[in-house]
Amino acid sequence: MRILGIDPGLQCTGFGVIDADGPHLHYVASGTIKTMASAAMGDLPARLKVLFDGIGEINERYAPQTAAVEIVFVNVNPQSTLLLGQARGACVTALVARELPVAEYTALQMKKAVVGSGRADKSQVQEMVKRLLQLPGVPGKDAADALGIAITHAHVGQAMARIAQAAPLKRTTTGMYRGGRAR
Amino acid sequence: MRILGIDPGLQCTGFGVIDADGPHLHYVASGTIKTMASAAMGDLPARLKVLFDGIGEINERYAPQTAAVEIVFVNVNPQSTLLLGQARGACVTALVARELPVAEYTALQMKKAVVGSGRADKSQVQEMVKRLLQLPGVPGKDAADALGIAITHAHVGQAMARIAQAAPLKRTTTGMYRGGRAR
Repeated sequence: MRILGIDPGLQCTGFGVIDADGPHLHYVASGTIKTMASAAMGDLPARLKVLFDGIGEINERYAPQTAAVEIVFVNVNPQSTLLLGQARGACVTALVARELPVAEYTALQMKKAVVGSGRADKSQVQEMVKRLLQLPGVPGKDAADALGIAITHAHVGQAMARIAQAAPLKRTTTGMYRGGRAR
Repeated sequence: MRILGIDPGLQCTGFGVIDADGPHLHYVASGTIKTMASAAMGDLPARLKVLFDGIGEINERYAPQTAAVEIVFVNVNPQSTLLLGQARGACVTALVARELPVAEYTALQMKKAVVGSGRADKSQVQEMVKRLLQLPGVPGKDAADALGIAITHAHVGQAMARIAQAAPLKRTTTGMYRGGRAR
């Protein structure tokens, strides 16, 4: 299963592609899509197009089967929140427009899955991503977050597979359930 | 010039298509794209896809040459701001992905252009859109806003054309400018 992880941002969107082969994870690619604010005001549509086209290029080059995007949070500055929201909207749209299934994880879920603690800082995420994917060096912060999101999705996929493989529960009919109706 | 106006929203996105033939405006179509929240949580990607596909369908059916999108503002609730931002990001992305030029106007600019006052309320916008486009009845609020945005863009386009038609300024060479270099 090839997974594309995305850490959305208006100025810099991180991406990371990994292959999940059962419990084994393999690094495929990672990097950032940068949208420079042009001198002209009101260039937001142009910047969102850079995100749409950039994700399209990654999709064509690496052909992921599924995607996972970090859930962003409200910023201190409401105007930044609005811009970040639009950037994330462009990223998710770029994925669903190419018919990729999109899962969503918070930074907290990602840190728990990758480092084991929701309070991990960025450098710990970078270090653990490096170890888990056996990289020669630590990836950049945005790329590490994106790879972390992809790893989180791989873990969830594995857990799902284990549940599916497990023998179905056999429930003895009890008075409580017999003839009852699920609400 | 066929213009597509968009009033973005996560639950309901208004659209309006008009033809601007010099000072004459003709109604082509309008309506809303509704994205219902499914029972499942985390269905935001699916809702953004509805917006992307909906705008794609409008683009194919009416073949606008240019688009204009309302600039949204920070909401009382920061979480709503984030959701609205993502919806607007999806709308703008849907347009730029189809190579449509995208202009942006605030609700204030639209109200000034359509009603003549930035303090106009929604019903006044509906009434003026009805008159300007000679509609048999008032359009819905979201569709009226979207048509208003398209009308605003038509007005701006006309103003631009008038400026372009005006004779170019002839500037007598003065000592101040001669040999000078523009910075």
